[in-house]
Amino acid sequence: MTTGRPRDPDRDQAILAATRELLAERGYAGFSIEAVAAKAGTAKTTIYRRWQDKHDLLVAALKDHVPHYPEIAEADSLRGDLIAHASRLATLINGFDGRLALGVMQARPDVAGIAEELERNTPSGARLPERVITRAVERGELPAPVDRDLFEEIVSSLLTLRMIRRQLVDDDYVAHVVDDIVLPAFRNSAREA
Amino acid sequence: MTTGRPRDPDRDQAILAATRELLAERGYAGFSIEAVAAKAGTAKTTIYRRWQDKHDLLVAALKDHVPHYPEIAEADSLRGDLIAHASRLATLINGFDGRLALGVMQARPDVAGIAEELERNTPSGARLPERVITRAVERGELPAPVDRDLFEEIVSSLLTLRMIRRQLVDDDYVAHVVDDIVLPAFRNSAREA
Repeated sequence: MTTGRPRDPDRDQAILAATRELLAERGYAGFSIEAVAAKAGTAKTTIYRRWQDKHDLLVAALKDHVPHYPEIAEADSLRGDLIAHASRLATLINGFDGRLALGVMQARPDVAGIAEELERNTPSGARLPERVITRAVERGELPAPVDRDLFEEIVSSLLTLRMIRRQLVDDDYVAHVVDDIVLPAFRNSAREA
Repeated sequence: MTTGRPRDPDRDQAILAATRELLAERGYAGFSIEAVAAKAGTAKTTIYRRWQDKHDLLVAALKDHVPHYPEIAEADSLRGDLIAHASRLATLINGFDGRLALGVMQARPDVAGIAEELERNTPSGARLPERVITRAVERGELPAPVDRDLFEEIVSSLLTLRMIRRQLVDDDYVAHVVDDIVLPAFRNSAREA
């Protein structure tokens, strides 16, 4: 896609950032090369020199995006750790990353590469470190290691659907998900281990 | 919105059905009054005589939609009942209603009335009848009645996110959700009752 003309990395970055902002602000229906050009303060031809079409640009913008996951301090209980990790995801989902994920979801299934980028870019700050489980077993809170993928599966699904339905994801909702769904699933998983 | 001109109910129904089909087939990005008119074999002016704009038409099309939930035979165990109800939702989500829900999700949050219609129209065939819980308590499978809303919350979230991510929702996945997440949550809810 590149030509003999030297590329301007700053210009490229500005175009990719404008693409993500448009998706987050106006959704896929409001996303066009023309709108990106206007937002990035560049010419449509500049964009077309680097990317074939809007889908090519969209995939590049998502590949370039690195969600920011703040560090999480270790708590002194399994429940404390789970609340902290679920709350971090709630913050992401309530912010720019959630709006971006919603914009990406709006892309049609037939856009090549979108499903994979969607998977990679749906806020997945809910991936639970192995260490959380190890510590819970050491503290005697769990009788055996559990399938920690259950955490991400449950928390990201429930919080994402709340976001899609424009329902509030607050501390009470996060506590409900951890206490009433994740912890019972973990205890069951430990029993079966 | 109606004028002195007599309305043709069949024509109206055809326009609303075409709206739903377009949303399910091409998503919100492919939805326009022009495309609906072409699909319904009518003139754009006919549509504008009845509905103010595309959002007005979209809300009317969703209000008019009655998802078909097939009857479910009672099983002889709580697990059997839960699998049957979750499977029915999986069938809906894998079919027209799931594609329609995805199309509606693509509408922007600022479209008045969409959030409510989305809530009403996201396949909710997962609403568990009280009878399923009563029977489980009678059979001694649960020590006390549980919060049955947990079923709908868990199943519709997990299955919807799978659909959005274009991941398979098959019998194995349904059994995983019931066995590893719903049943542990129910047992926990019964303990706390």
